[in-house]
Amino acid sequence: MRGLELQATWDNEGKHFIFHSPTLTASKWWNGSLGRTATHSIVVAQLILPDESGKVLKNHGPHPFIIRVRDEKTHQPLAGIVVGDIGPKYGYSSMDNGYMLFNRFHVPHSAFLSRYFQVDRTSGMYTSTAQNPAVVYGSLTNIRVNIVLHARLVLARAVTVAVRYLTIRRQFRDRDDPGGSGPERAVLDYPTVQIRVLPLLATTFALHYTGRVVGQRYKDIRENIEKGDLSELAELHATSSGLKSLCTTLAADGIETCRRALGGHGFGGGSGLIQLNADYLSKPTVEGDNAMITQQTAAYIVKKMQAIAEAVDDKALTSSNAIDRSFKEHLTATKAGLSEQDTFSILADDGAIVHAFERRAAHLSLQAYQARIVKKKPWTNLLIQLHALSNAHSQAILVRNFHVALCASSPPANDVIPSAAKSVLSICFRLFALHTINTHARDFSASMAVSSAVLDSLPDHVLELMDQLQPHAVALVDAWSIPDYLLDSALGRSDGRVYEDLFNRAHRLNPLNKETFNPYYWDKNIYMDKSKL
Amino acid sequence: MRGLELQATWDNEGKHFIFHSPTLTASKWWNGSLGRTATHSIVVAQLILPDESGKVLKNHGPHPFIIRVRDEKTHQPLAGIVVGDIGPKYGYSSMDNGYMLFNRFHVPHSAFLSRYFQVDRTSGMYTSTAQNPAVVYGSLTNIRVNIVLHARLVLARAVTVAVRYLTIRRQFRDRDDPGGSGPERAVLDYPTVQIRVLPLLATTFALHYTGRVVGQRYKDIRENIEKGDLSELAELHATSSGLKSLCTTLAADGIETCRRALGGHGFGGGSGLIQLNADYLSKPTVEGDNAMITQQTAAYIVKKMQAIAEAVDDKALTSSNAIDRSFKEHLTATKAGLSEQDTFSILADDGAIVHAFERRAAHLSLQAYQARIVKKKPWTNLLIQLHALSNAHSQAILVRNFHVALCASSPPANDVIPSAAKSVLSICFRLFALHTINTHARDFSASMAVSSAVLDSLPDHVLELMDQLQPHAVALVDAWSIPDYLLDSALGRSDGRVYEDLFNRAHRLNPLNKETFNPYYWDKNIYMDKSKL
Repeated sequence: MRGLELQATWDNEGKHFIFHSPTLTASKWWNGSLGRTATHSIVVAQLILPDESGKVLKNHGPHPFIIRVRDEKTHQPLAGIVVGDIGPKYGYSSMDNGYMLFNRFHVPHSAFLSRYFQVDRTSGMYTSTAQNPAVVYGSLTNIRVNIVLHARLVLARAVTVAVRYLTIRRQFRDRDDPGGSGPERAVLDYPTVQIRVLPLLATTFALHYTGRVVGQRYKDIRENIEKGDLSELAELHATSSGLKSLCTTLAADGIETCRRALGGHGFGGGSGLIQLNADYLSKPTVEGDNAMITQQTAAYIVKKMQAIAEAVDDKALTSSNAIDRSFKEHLTATKAGLSEQDTFSILADDGAIVHAFERRAAHLSLQAYQARIVKKKPWTNLLIQLHALSNAHSQAILVRNFHVALCASSPPANDVIPSAAKSVLSICFRLFALHTINTHARDFSASMAVSSAVLDSLPDHVLELMDQLQPHAVALVDAWSIPDYLLDSALGRSDGRVYEDLFNRAHRLNPLNKETFNPYYWDKNIYMDKSKL
Repeated sequence: MRGLELQATWDNEGKHFIFHSPTLTASKWWNGSLGRTATHSIVVAQLILPDESGKVLKNHGPHPFIIRVRDEKTHQPLAGIVVGDIGPKYGYSSMDNGYMLFNRFHVPHSAFLSRYFQVDRTSGMYTSTAQNPAVVYGSLTNIRVNIVLHARLVLARAVTVAVRYLTIRRQFRDRDDPGGSGPERAVLDYPTVQIRVLPLLATTFALHYTGRVVGQRYKDIRENIEKGDLSELAELHATSSGLKSLCTTLAADGIETCRRALGGHGFGGGSGLIQLNADYLSKPTVEGDNAMITQQTAAYIVKKMQAIAEAVDDKALTSSNAIDRSFKEHLTATKAGLSEQDTFSILADDGAIVHAFERRAAHLSLQAYQARIVKKKPWTNLLIQLHALSNAHSQAILVRNFHVALCASSPPANDVIPSAAKSVLSICFRLFALHTINTHARDFSASMAVSSAVLDSLPDHVLELMDQLQPHAVALVDAWSIPDYLLDSALGRSDGRVYEDLFNRAHRLNPLNKETFNPYYWDKNIYMDKSKL
């Protein structure tokens, strides 16, 4: 953003700003609704003002303006503005994303958005009334929190289609009973199918409880943010950045994993997952690229670890903050020396699972602190490690909130789980957690969070959990209550009439089949002459 | 396939077959060109013939026929056949995939494809002249071999776009030099971008050398296959199944990884990767679903290991077959007891890298043999383990063939690497191999192929290799010589004129921008009345 090239230069004689794009790369791009529809747009430009002498121009950095782009009556772009639709995209076709360039375009003084910063109309002098310029992170945090809640619903749509269809569809006889007379097996019986779909089913609930908790937390501290008190926002901003990255990656990859698990019909239009995938694939990139925004989480965590590790008195060490406590515990334990005997009994106790995730996150935090602060390694060289740290931290949050929801009779977000559902959701909790540990086994081993023997046994435990979960899978996706109308999927129909719907879409609804094309390519007619039929 | 429901019943009085689809699930679906174009189709149906008494019908299993589907003059489906286009799909829009159902449709005797199997016209009796019914695997193997070669080119397209654009595009200043006056950094400077793109660049070459080797191998043994000698085909079939699964997964995931690495413009139509992705996403499913066909590889390997482990004399143990030798070595070493001291020095010696992959594959083969043959565990319960075994075996093949190509002055497929290119391709080899080891570190540790200390150091070695490779990245993608016309990508242009092309596509080529839409939604006109402009 600091590298943006569009200039807004104050002309103190004309009493207006002059908007100018000095190069092609100064173009605005992707602006929603700007392509065909918008008459006005909020535009961020480098604010360039004369200094006190009035002779030398000084850049005050990016600031927002509201700009009239098109004439309201003719809908034509104003002279000095080049604007249009950027054309085809992967998905999201309903949005006319636009581009915009300025050629010495005059913008009135009143267009400057001056709540926190002002430009004096008489002198062109700059003042600021912002108590804390970081206040803009408030709305960014809110957007990222909502993306987490959105991710769980999108993933639930894909999982609903997959679980329903793979329960209906049968394929192959049991290899150990090749001449068997029974029907072929339901595809969701196969572990190679279960391992792709059932952990994602568990993931929808993991995302749900954390989405609710951080959403509520944002509402709770919203008033303080308005007052400029960002003390609580900092952690929520760091947390929501990491969660946005992890959860949108889980959802985007999860949709495609579900689609491939459907087999051939997953590639067909009847799956209902093609448009979902195409539309959702913007999410890992927008509102902070998933590979980049994890730096915000990691930077916060490294600072936290530094405060704990370098505390000269016990003040930081008596903090009630959960991260502080976890870090302090880990530092104490590391100094005493951790061995295999200190690993957590994750198979015996769900609480121990939460501790294992937190120890692993603390371990990676300590490593990052040592690399960055103690050994002073260049930040850029640590980026892969910092990205992994953010993901580990976010996974710990997902696991903790899921566990709290299962334990509490009144969880933070008032999302009480009926006792009848608790046992099934506990299987989801363990499947999500153990599958994640299995995927990152070396982290959990290196941090002495889980013993090697337990790690070796995890694949079998995951298999067993999937066996326990499978009979409930259809009921669990039904619990998301996604209407057939929204799913728009032959494979995911709630009544299971998959093949009837596929045939109906192809044979009755597909307009291509209403025409007979002319096989004689040398004729000028595309359609067959009906009199010849 | 054995569960297919379409019936072809011989009517000995009418001297024809009666084709009938008893249910909706007996429909054919996906048949290429059948939707609108084809007049004839090869159709597989259950062959149902009268027994010797002529009274009882017997099912001889699936057999192929060639069926006239549409009238050649009117292009109308024949009476008794329901046929049409299945409608929208994820990609591959140029293909009119079709569906087909039969209603007691008469098919002449001559339609039965009788090279290996015959039905007597007089009696309706069944005979077979096939020396080996498995001969059909020959063409399946050929298809899978070609898919490996195709995968490398598709992946090379995506990597070409990513490497070129990410070298042009600059974003963010160095965090350790925030006030720096230099330009923002090239995006390909960031390790979090490198780690996604550069191992895939190395992967294109890994796939290339193995694709060439197995393609040549198939040609070499083609004559024997025709003679019914399938002894050499069995291993190639097992190998090509595993490679098809691994390589198409690498390519399909790789395209999307490259696309996301492009940032916002990756979601735009100018990336050139959207249609590529949509079209290629059929490949992990067709010609054997990637999650299922690895069973064919695993079954072959388990049988091999069984032969070696249970050999009563030394005959099997003196085999010249590479897998046999590797398995024998591993069994001997395991009996003597493997420890950390026996691990390979993969950082010092490229040959040791190949040995490490082969020991890990042998280790997983031995585990699978013990689970399946010794402990007699149900096949279905082992599917996840067997899928991982197939991937490990395929990775060992990729690594070995890459290494052979680098060492040999005349590699098997006559694909001699010029000595000037060897040092750069050696970096690709090590990057592909070490990145793969790092991703599956626990396997390599558990099999005593690589020591824990070396595994801990791999992330740093991968970073170093990427630093070495980056200056050559543009030259390496240029070496694939994919024409700009085929790439059809503003971001991937060989002349680097990314932003000019993006602007040209949006502003000059996009026909949407030639029209001014009417902002007065209550008017009946969609377009603005030109007289008002």
